[in-house]
Amino acid sequence: MKASSGLNLSIALIHYPVTNKNGEVITSAVTNLDLHDMARSARTYGVAAFYVVTPLEDQKKLAAKLVDHWVTGGGARYNPNRCEALQLIHIRDNLEQVIAEIEQANGQRPQTIVTCARPQSGSVSYGALRKTLGNKVPGLLLFGTAWGLAPDCMAAANIILDPVRGIGPYNHLSVRSATAIILDRLCGEFS
Amino acid sequence: MKASSGLNLSIALIHYPVTNKNGEVITSAVTNLDLHDMARSARTYGVAAFYVVTPLEDQKKLAAKLVDHWVTGGGARYNPNRCEALQLIHIRDNLEQVIAEIEQANGQRPQTIVTCARPQSGSVSYGALRKTLGNKVPGLLLFGTAWGLAPDCMAAANIILDPVRGIGPYNHLSVRSATAIILDRLCGEFS
Repeated sequence: MKASSGLNLSIALIHYPVTNKNGEVITSAVTNLDLHDMARSARTYGVAAFYVVTPLEDQKKLAAKLVDHWVTGGGARYNPNRCEALQLIHIRDNLEQVIAEIEQANGQRPQTIVTCARPQSGSVSYGALRKTLGNKVPGLLLFGTAWGLAPDCMAAANIILDPVRGIGPYNHLSVRSATAIILDRLCGEFS
Repeated sequence: MKASSGLNLSIALIHYPVTNKNGEVITSAVTNLDLHDMARSARTYGVAAFYVVTPLEDQKKLAAKLVDHWVTGGGARYNPNRCEALQLIHIRDNLEQVIAEIEQANGQRPQTIVTCARPQSGSVSYGALRKTLGNKVPGLLLFGTAWGLAPDCMAAANIILDPVRGIGPYNHLSVRSATAIILDRLCGEFS
């Protein structure tokens, strides 16, 4: 489960519990392109595993069918690079199951990490998180779909990462773009 | 047309001329989520304009309908943040038209910038490009759909940017993710 960046990092895309536009806790639908884009980013940055978390049976079936097409079906022959990315995907019922699985594989409970579009007190910088995870601590980055992770899920996380922030106050990146940027900040090397 | 990052940067998503899996030059179809994700990234990083380039009349109509929904239609009321992002979109026939338009607005021809998944001789670093564009030179980042920009389009660019590169040789990010990462490297601030 060790990522080749030196960081032992996994990511999870949460479909429950997340909030809707009105702040109510809901279960969101799985989006095809989230799985593709985030798997491709995960593979590019040496992420150990990409967990797709939904409690809904029909959504789990849909996600599994999609992944199977690209990992063992016609898609694998059509585009082997896509196969290599999507085989990082594991579909799980809930976050607790994901945490237990990583703990079992590593002999150590992962630090759960959330990001927030708005600044939060006690949030850590990307450099600080790189150092923490560089000490062999398994990390699990949580990404919320819809209008973001439910407050209880945010509050239960071990680490809050600084917001991505661009230029000025506008901060409405897609979860696909935010994942790509955060992985690049944590694992990328460039001058 | 001045971006608030201090860089005068625009982006263009090219649907022709691009290559298919077999290296043949084709016109690709407009993808809804490319427009959303790239507009949201563009708005977040203070990009001056996001040009969607396709010569096909039906595709231009489709893209215009989509943009209209979010900029002046029901979508604008439902999600004003999305409106703010998608109003950066301009649909144009070809790259020459885009370059002429930026030149006219700035009194200076933009430097066209391409990125390539594979290392190229003479490619420049993100830091070097930031410095070039910091000197008030308008920049136009070109992103290819399908299997990437056609060789002639690549060869005609003024600047080749270093590949994004993650961990190891795998480099198959979506155009949505690549755009987000490149804008963050050029315009983002983080520690």
